Amino acid sequence: MIASSELSLSVLDAARNRRSIRRYTNDPMPREDLREILEVVSLAPSAFNVQPWRFLVVEDPSLKTRLAAAAFNQPQVLAAPAVIVLYSDADEVLRSVADVVHPGLAPEQRAKTAQSILAFLNAKSTAEREEWVAAQANIALGYLLLAASALDYQTSAMGGFDPAAVKKLLGLPARARINALVAIGKGDEEGFPHHRLPLERLATFR
Amino acid sequence: MIASSELSLSVLDAARNRRSIRRYTNDPMPREDLREILEVVSLAPSAFNVQPWRFLVVEDPSLKTRLAAAAFNQPQVLAAPAVIVLYSDADEVLRSVADVVHPGLAPEQRAKTAQSILAFLNAKSTAEREEWVAAQANIALGYLLLAASALDYQTSAMGGFDPAAVKKLLGLPARARINALVAIGKGDEEGFPHHRLPLERLATFR
Repeated sequence: MIASSELSLSVLDAARNRRSIRRYTNDPMPREDLREILEVVSLAPSAFNVQPWRFLVVEDPSLKTRLAAAAFNQPQVLAAPAVIVLYSDADEVLRSVADVVHPGLAPEQRAKTAQSILAFLNAKSTAEREEWVAAQANIALGYLLLAASALDYQTSAMGGFDPAAVKKLLGLPARARINALVAIGKGDEEGFPHHRLPLERLATFR
Repeated sequence: MIASSELSLSVLDAARNRRSIRRYTNDPMPREDLREILEVVSLAPSAFNVQPWRFLVVEDPSLKTRLAAAAFNQPQVLAAPAVIVLYSDADEVLRSVADVVHPGLAPEQRAKTAQSILAFLNAKSTAEREEWVAAQANIALGYLLLAASALDYQTSAMGGFDPAAVKKLLGLPARARINALVAIGKGDEEGFPHHRLPLERLATFR
């Protein structure tokens, strides 16, 4: 269960406060807080509600040391008390279709919905399906970084790693796609202030 | 500028309250609120800070009617006061590299960083680059739905539309990738409660 909402920052403050943080204090990361953050992330939406995101949370120091070696020895992997490996597995998504259809639907509508999701996924090549599933999983990355920030944890989302080495080390399926390694803990530096394109470059109103 | 944070729900409540909403009241959507939501979204992180998300906000009723025709006449396109077209354009990302490098870096480091981002992007085929850029833009989708919910607006993110027809109608580049059409406004229905896989299926701790 998700605990009380009073402890959670507003979306605005969570977005403002979030920085990419590479240095962390030695404070351990309570498992309860990790679970609470991931419970929030599990509420993220996805096309057809497929929920393709999976999280392998590396807390064990010796495993984390080996993970760092597969991530070009980025210091935040060692410094943070936990690293969340966010990945997706298109085969598992295919296997889970019946479980993600909303139980509020009538039985025949459930079956029909499951069939159309499968038809959508199976119309793609293996590579296309993996791309699509992996892109959906990035919706959860936005949620994850905001949820951590809301509970006053700092993060660093890393794209620099050897995917094959990480999958082998952690026993993930060979065809899994890893979206990011996310170091998480109590930050021990301020980080760079946001540098963003002005809204005028991003948004047009018609 | 982003207004006061007191008006913004906590991340937890925003995630809990968010539903896919297809019916909307007739209330107009103030431009200021749209801008405030998109300002929050602009704080989303991306690999190399490329910020590939672009937003074309359709408010004009007659344009929205034509957009609905390109989105299989989904009723929420007509019912919502605004529809945000979230898209990315890999060519624009390539052109923007110098602008996204952090100004806090020393000049020679800025140039080196821009070069390595370009080298990363140019090592990909056109299709691979578009896929990668589009997947990054989904991070902003998570932010967008949470930011709207935090300001007590409801949304419906739609994947069902004819991309070529939408791009032609709105004058988007032919090679742009559209992540989603997001209907936004004041909801006029409760929506379905969340149906999610249990955390045990999503997360493993090691």
